[in-house]
Amino acid sequence: MTSDNSSPTVVGVDFGTLSARAVVVRAGDGVELGTGIGEYRNGAIERTLPDSGQPLPADWALQDPADWRAALGTCVREAIRDSGVDPASVVGIGTDFTACTVLPVLRDGTPLCEIPGLRARPHAWPKLWKHHAAQAQADRITALAHERGEKWISRYGGRISSEWQFAKALQLLEEDEDTYRRTERWIEAADWIIWQLCGAETRNTCTAGYKGIYQDGAYPSLEYLSALHPEFGDFAQTRLAGVPLSPLGARAGTLTAAAAALTGLPEGIAVAVGNVDAHVTAPAARAIAPGQMLAIMGTSTCHVMNGDTLAAVPGICGVVDGGIIAGLFGYEAGQSAVGDIFAWWIGQGVPEAYLAAARERGLSLHEYLSSRCAWQPVGAHGLVALDWMGGNRSILVDHHLSGVIAGMTLATTPEDIYLALLESTAFGTRVIVDAFGAAGLPVTEFVVAGGLKRNRMLLQIYADVLRRPVSVATSDQAPALGSAIHAAVAAGVHADVASAAEAMGRKEQAVFTPDPERADAYDELFEEYRTLHDYFSGRGPDANDVLHRLRQRRNAATAAKARADRG
Amino acid sequence: MTSDNSSPTVVGVDFGTLSARAVVVRAGDGVELGTGIGEYRNGAIERTLPDSGQPLPADWALQDPADWRAALGTCVREAIRDSGVDPASVVGIGTDFTACTVLPVLRDGTPLCEIPGLRARPHAWPKLWKHHAAQAQADRITALAHERGEKWISRYGGRISSEWQFAKALQLLEEDEDTYRRTERWIEAADWIIWQLCGAETRNTCTAGYKGIYQDGAYPSLEYLSALHPEFGDFAQTRLAGVPLSPLGARAGTLTAAAAALTGLPEGIAVAVGNVDAHVTAPAARAIAPGQMLAIMGTSTCHVMNGDTLAAVPGICGVVDGGIIAGLFGYEAGQSAVGDIFAWWIGQGVPEAYLAAARERGLSLHEYLSSRCAWQPVGAHGLVALDWMGGNRSILVDHHLSGVIAGMTLATTPEDIYLALLESTAFGTRVIVDAFGAAGLPVTEFVVAGGLKRNRMLLQIYADVLRRPVSVATSDQAPALGSAIHAAVAAGVHADVASAAEAMGRKEQAVFTPDPERADAYDELFEEYRTLHDYFSGRGPDANDVLHRLRQRRNAATAAKARADRG
Repeated sequence: MTSDNSSPTVVGVDFGTLSARAVVVRAGDGVELGTGIGEYRNGAIERTLPDSGQPLPADWALQDPADWRAALGTCVREAIRDSGVDPASVVGIGTDFTACTVLPVLRDGTPLCEIPGLRARPHAWPKLWKHHAAQAQADRITALAHERGEKWISRYGGRISSEWQFAKALQLLEEDEDTYRRTERWIEAADWIIWQLCGAETRNTCTAGYKGIYQDGAYPSLEYLSALHPEFGDFAQTRLAGVPLSPLGARAGTLTAAAAALTGLPEGIAVAVGNVDAHVTAPAARAIAPGQMLAIMGTSTCHVMNGDTLAAVPGICGVVDGGIIAGLFGYEAGQSAVGDIFAWWIGQGVPEAYLAAARERGLSLHEYLSSRCAWQPVGAHGLVALDWMGGNRSILVDHHLSGVIAGMTLATTPEDIYLALLESTAFGTRVIVDAFGAAGLPVTEFVVAGGLKRNRMLLQIYADVLRRPVSVATSDQAPALGSAIHAAVAAGVHADVASAAEAMGRKEQAVFTPDPERADAYDELFEEYRTLHDYFSGRGPDANDVLHRLRQRRNAATAAKARADRG
Repeated sequence: MTSDNSSPTVVGVDFGTLSARAVVVRAGDGVELGTGIGEYRNGAIERTLPDSGQPLPADWALQDPADWRAALGTCVREAIRDSGVDPASVVGIGTDFTACTVLPVLRDGTPLCEIPGLRARPHAWPKLWKHHAAQAQADRITALAHERGEKWISRYGGRISSEWQFAKALQLLEEDEDTYRRTERWIEAADWIIWQLCGAETRNTCTAGYKGIYQDGAYPSLEYLSALHPEFGDFAQTRLAGVPLSPLGARAGTLTAAAAALTGLPEGIAVAVGNVDAHVTAPAARAIAPGQMLAIMGTSTCHVMNGDTLAAVPGICGVVDGGIIAGLFGYEAGQSAVGDIFAWWIGQGVPEAYLAAARERGLSLHEYLSSRCAWQPVGAHGLVALDWMGGNRSILVDHHLSGVIAGMTLATTPEDIYLALLESTAFGTRVIVDAFGAAGLPVTEFVVAGGLKRNRMLLQIYADVLRRPVSVATSDQAPALGSAIHAAVAAGVHADVASAAEAMGRKEQAVFTPDPERADAYDELFEEYRTLHDYFSGRGPDANDVLHRLRQRRNAATAAKARADRG
């Protein structure tokens, strides 16, 4: 990449689960000039706490805020070096984060885990998005909301996730009251990192809405929260509220001297408000107009799409006013497992001859299996599968469902099943796309970012199954580019996120278009999928709740075995 | 084995798909003294004819009668040598054969394929049991029987198999009229081999009933056969009938000089009438009383059981008066694929680490996977599967069904699925056992012969799922021992097959008994199986015919691809 030191530049930083990635971007046209990466020393903390060695219970996942600070300095400095631009050309910085990753802090932003006396307390640490130990609290939050008829529950597909702010906070209160009492603020990492950059607490509309149950101008009421736990009543008022919510693309403040020293960027440049990794990608992939659904496809898939109107879409993760871009309703949906399902199948093993052939040809097993089924006419494998090996996020919102494969014969090959699993995730996406359409939010273009965007066979299947053009985000660092776009808006280079996306975002338009004959065949196969989907959902009088019963039996049998092994 | 040259001995020969096995047995008590094997030089002929190289169409499977003769000589001589007995001690010989394996011969028993001018004609050769190219004829035979209300069709689960005598003969007529016209007799290999031994044509009640639609004293009528094809009207009258049917255990005749020269046995000894490999095993495993179901478990499973009464059991392969033993109604049922399903799963591949561990420990992959799931409490894998990867023989009689596996999560392992497949075949057996019970033929003991009798984990699962004791045939050559038992009866050593079985048959009684707790858990899992069984059968208003549609789509897509590749 050639650099042009006369143009203003911006920096975007994407905080992932194991590392942060920075990109230096020309603010005018979005050309990427350099990238950098900063690994987290402690990564995802799932077994024991750093320093104290304190062991963690099952399903816990924490992070170390010191890692975020250190990675920020490392990746920004490396990106600047890689770009060759003069740091003085940088006019703004934006960031995005995994969510809901949330931490207890003092009123000045100090993480509780950095207070010496609290360092050995698990609840003083940031809880990572995949901390799944607050399910009991989430279940009570959901049940009570329905019981009391809380209006906001419908904005979340009828179910509050154990991953979100309230479930994690209630777990803190119920399991470590003392640490809860010392928690002065409960803040998303997405907002906390901005606090470190500009020295002032801000909160963004995106995480407040999707992860903090902020709807129609308010958090859940004192009455509702008191009914959950007597001491929880003022939680939102004291630990969340108190600062105005900032729209995405707004300026949170300017870079402090300390943050300038950490990053090597000029003091006083614009700092954009925080954002979430999936949502921030929409402008980078030019997928912000209503009808443009962005799918970030990797181990799982997150779908985000803007709408002009507030509609009830069954089974979505959430709808938030200004959740993706100010002025539109941002919808989020998801598939719990996508790439994970393909990897699961590979993990069952392949024939030895396949291993040898793949090695000889220098192909991954994914590539080799794909090459073996690429010739197949639609349906030649005789299979249909339900993509629920990781449960179903949208539209059933049921993580106790499990996968099904039907149609195997003695002639069925590993690549047949691999292909059927690829297709099953496309069918799962179509159910979501159809649900949006039925709610008055038609999807006209499907835009893909994330690791699976490189799988051409998969994306052609998606185009055929969805009967829609599939576009592909150009950038390999699309979330970081999205953060840079927000930085450019915060710095005033562009008037708003929409025009910045126009100038700086990039996608290859309609790389894959439906093949009419294959789309017709997939229409019929999708009907089979949909029938099995409804049957195995366990809902309705004609459905079969076998998957839940199998899950209960599995859990009971495994628990009994564990007890027997111990005793 | 020590031999006792003063006792009379008998020889049993089991003609399998690729070889014949002989056993020399002490006629008084059934002690096995020696065994021998004779491989078929041409094996199963599935691609090109011997000598002429004439190519065969898809789904054809033939055999060479010269192989049967040669293997007979080889295996009997080897067994006698192995036993160390004086051939003069042998008082009788009995045989059993795969069925329906059937051939066109002249009136003197000469196979048409041994007539020089006919050697290059595929239809002149014996059609092996697994010749599956007469499906169109079988479908018409079945449809016409229902149309005309033929009473016999109910004796075969409502469906005549493409493997049987009439379908194969009608295919001969319709595809090679000239060879059909030169066919003077159409005879089961089971009876043809007896003809070679004693020089006279005989027919046994077992193959006539199960494979030749001989019911209530008659073959299908001239009117019925004429309606199938004008020239087929006299088929049964001229090519099947004309010799009396002999009950099992009867003497067909005595060993000719030529057969004595071939086998090294004394001329003039008793020759028992022909028999089928599965049915002949019942006395060898002491499973001849009503209620004792014998399962010959290998790649597929064949179930045979005697009953006092003629009952309508849905989905059986056939019921024949004297079909297993004279004086009782012999019932036959089956599962199309059993060991084949386990092998199919192994064939999908296993993780490399499993391959290495199995090799290191000197275990087969079957043994290794079994060792990894042997600890599992019932249901701990969270799975249920339908064992239809090879279609369903009983009780649905539908080879266009296919397999289903439900309940997979990202944590599901190869051994989890392996175990679920073992269980699925036990559930499939329970459906059959329940159908017999519901028809007034309760199964009180389950006796296993065949290769899978050595799989202890599998048989314990069967005991638990069936809630019945599982006994195991002692002999590793149970079909050949059964033939020897019939030889002993034909030779007059024992009064009838029942008393011969008592004296010479052997099983280990109730080796596996149900574990009450596991049986309770399996009762519940079986309910899930049964619900999915009925749903995926495609029958009834609440069922889903998806498996047939997937099969049709597969066949159409594959055929279209083949046409495109050719053109």
